[in-house]
Amino acid sequence: MPLVKPVEYEHASPEVKAVFDDIMATRKVAAINNFWKVLAHDPPTLLRTWHEVRDVMKPGALDALTKEMIYVAVSATNNCEYCTYSHTAAARKAGMSDAMLAEVLAVTGLANKTNRLANGYRVEVDAVFVPKD
Amino acid sequence: MPLVKPVEYEHASPEVKAVFDDIMATRKVAAINNFWKVLAHDPPTLLRTWHEVRDVMKPGALDALTKEMIYVAVSATNNCEYCTYSHTAAARKAGMSDAMLAEVLAVTGLANKTNRLANGYRVEVDAVFVPKD
Amino acid sequence: MPLVKPVEYEHASPEVKAVFDDIMATRKVAAINNFWKVLAHDPPTLLRTWHEVRDVMKPGALDALTKEMIYVAVSATNNCEYCTYSHTAAARKAGMSDAMLAEVLAVTGLANKTNRLANGYRVEVDAVFVPKD
Amino acid sequence: MPLVKPVEYEHASPEVKAVFDDIMATRKVAAINNFWKVLAHDPPTLLRTWHEVRDVMKPGALDALTKEMIYVAVSATNNCEYCTYSHTAAARKAGMSDAMLAEVLAVTGLANKTNRLANGYRVEVDAVFVPKD
Amino acid sequence: MPLVKPVEYEHASPEVKAVFDDIMATRKVAAINNFWKVLAHDPPTLLRTWHEVRDVMKPGALDALTKEMIYVAVSATNNCEYCTYSHTAAARKAGMSDAMLAEVLAVTGLANKTNRLANGYRVEVDAVFVPKD
Amino acid sequence: MPLVKPVEYEHASPEVKAVFDDIMATRKVAAINNFWKVLAHDPPTLLRTWHEVRDVMKPGALDALTKEMIYVAVSATNNCEYCTYSHTAAARKAGMSDAMLAEVLAVTGLANKTNRLANGYRVEVDAVFVPKD
Repeated sequence: MPLVKPVEYEHASPEVKAVFDDIMATRKVAAINNFWKVLAHDPPTLLRTWHEVRDVMKPGALDALTKEMIYVAVSATNNCEYCTYSHTAAARKAGMSDAMLAEVLAVTGLANKTNRLANGYRVEVDAVFVPKD
Repeated sequence: MPLVKPVEYEHASPEVKAVFDDIMATRKVAAINNFWKVLAHDPPTLLRTWHEVRDVMKPGALDALTKEMIYVAVSATNNCEYCTYSHTAAARKAGMSDAMLAEVLAVTGLANKTNRLANGYRVEVDAVFVPKD
Repeated sequence: MPLVKPVEYEHASPEVKAVFDDIMATRKVAAINNFWKVLAHDPPTLLRTWHEVRDVMKPGALDALTKEMIYVAVSATNNCEYCTYSHTAAARKAGMSDAMLAEVLAVTGLANKTNRLANGYRVEVDAVFVPKD
Repeated sequence: MPLVKPVEYEHASPEVKAVFDDIMATRKVAAINNFWKVLAHDPPTLLRTWHEVRDVMKPGALDALTKEMIYVAVSATNNCEYCTYSHTAAARKAGMSDAMLAEVLAVTGLANKTNRLANGYRVEVDAVFVPKD
Repeated sequence: MPLVKPVEYEHASPEVKAVFDDIMATRKVAAINNFWKVLAHDPPTLLRTWHEVRDVMKPGALDALTKEMIYVAVSATNNCEYCTYSHTAAARKAGMSDAMLAEVLAVTGLANKTNRLANGYRVEVDAVFVPKD
Repeated sequence: MPLVKPVEYEHASPEVKAVFDDIMATRKVAAINNFWKVLAHDPPTLLRTWHEVRDVMKPGALDALTKEMIYVAVSATNNCEYCTYSHTAAARKAGMSDAMLAEVLAVTGLANKTNRLANGYRVEVDAVFVPKD
């Protein structure tokens, strides 16, 4: 059980209902996920987080699939079970194949390894990597 | 200063020199970075890590640029200064613009936030996200 | 199942019983939680950790509620399920409302985001923030 | 050097200048910190992050000082040098004494320890901590 | 359920079967664990990771037990449930007693605490700890 | 500069001086490191942390060298620069060779990688790894 009781659509305030409606319309889905139902206990956080997800994850300089794969890589690094499942599902919907998922996680694993080798040995940053003033 | 003294090419053993030569040939560069010079103190780790970087980061189901951007996202999450600088440089070489970097870090920041909202509230995974047996 | 079998009060050594008694007396509760039952396999760690929890978490320059909310923020950041549940319960007992929990987690999410923006962009610390010698 | 060149006020676009003006007016300060100057390369992230910091960190169910101390605890946990310095400075401005900082970090250290004891031993959550449906 | 369906021995390709056979022969066991069955969806990662585990974890300058205990300490720090269970089992097989496990986790907890005290206070590294050029 | 000014021996209170004297006597050294000088601003944390370090790190079921190497592995995982330098120095004093350091960091890197592969794929724990009730 989560720390607060999820808010179902039929019991939501008009303010929360409006966010739920926007989520379903934007994503063309007919149901609201647990993450948003739980955030609904705190309407300003629900509104702010939904707007951020909607605006940051839409296609821009990067396409939506690339963004979802980056989300999976970060969520696997932080061990967020909820976000790993939900953003893998979103990435698959956007076109991620099993082979692409395998490469996302192979890069994630490798980066987590070399991050610790570089930090553990305290390797100095090569001057060539640092932007010039 | 790193925990062990970097091994310069001219003082390297033939085994290490062969790895250094492969790095420079594969990447078409004329110098070896500090990361590899430090790993050279442990030739099996140098060889294994170089082969993994070479094979995992080459184009496959994902192109090289997408892989480098995932590497940057993980390195920023873990706060690896060395890897953030070096893989941002690699991603730029592979075509990452300032606008793309901005989106990589915006997604990384957002994922780090929602990872903690989901974990902090202990949100339950929706059944719809979990693969069927 | 945990990695070692929890020690129940009736099977505890006198040394462990004394710690269990102090926990129940200090907290005015009639039962021992799983965390302490598991630590009881290692009496020096049980004793040291209980004394630290008792002394660090008691009111001082900060009140007990503020301390419990900081504990929740750190536990959500590290994804400790046990500590998130147990310290949220402790914070509620000390007076935390749903609205306060919502703000604890909103700050925690925001800090996790800006931590990665600052680390990811490698922003330099402003001189004005650094204490003078 | 950061990954992108900080944007100084005099070279900022009108859109960025408006955010900078709001930051200085809200905080009653005469200069912009490096964090915002770097984010200015990505105006949507600058605007969104500033609005989130402004709204989440203002007094609500929790006072501003408590929020800044939670920010310091999370930043120390994640090892964000920039945020540790900047939010300690903000917390001091809001009234945090040396004794209060000491307690923030003592709780942070303790939570990081018990998080790993609970996760490492895989302690099961006591039923009493979990909210009822 | 994992994100991809585990590959059972009888349905594995010859390439994957060869890795499974080597795992069972090297470890003198009659079954394959879920970790390898899941990685089998990505044969290059299966092969690379198995070779790395086999070569890094075998006795060298450190004995196998010490290596398994380091693995447990890292896995508890990162909250990897799978790796904490599997490497505790491996460490017990290699001779780790309950008393040794208790000390592994006591050191892990302490290090996680002092890591945050040192990072949180931004303690400067003593010159005496840094290797001379 | 750290967040609080380090306390030098000659300006320390008798209570702090007693801890400093115990540190120097126990370790047979003639100077106090920055970590303890900074903690001296908070005498209860100084005293508690020193006693924990002294008691947890002394030989027990594990020898002192093994404990220091576990400390290095955790500190590299968390990216604590101070602790990585100071505990590598302590481990070397206790007998750690370059080859042993290389294996500590190779295991640390590998564990950080497989932790993310297991968490990222959401691999289910094999029943055989879980202790029976």
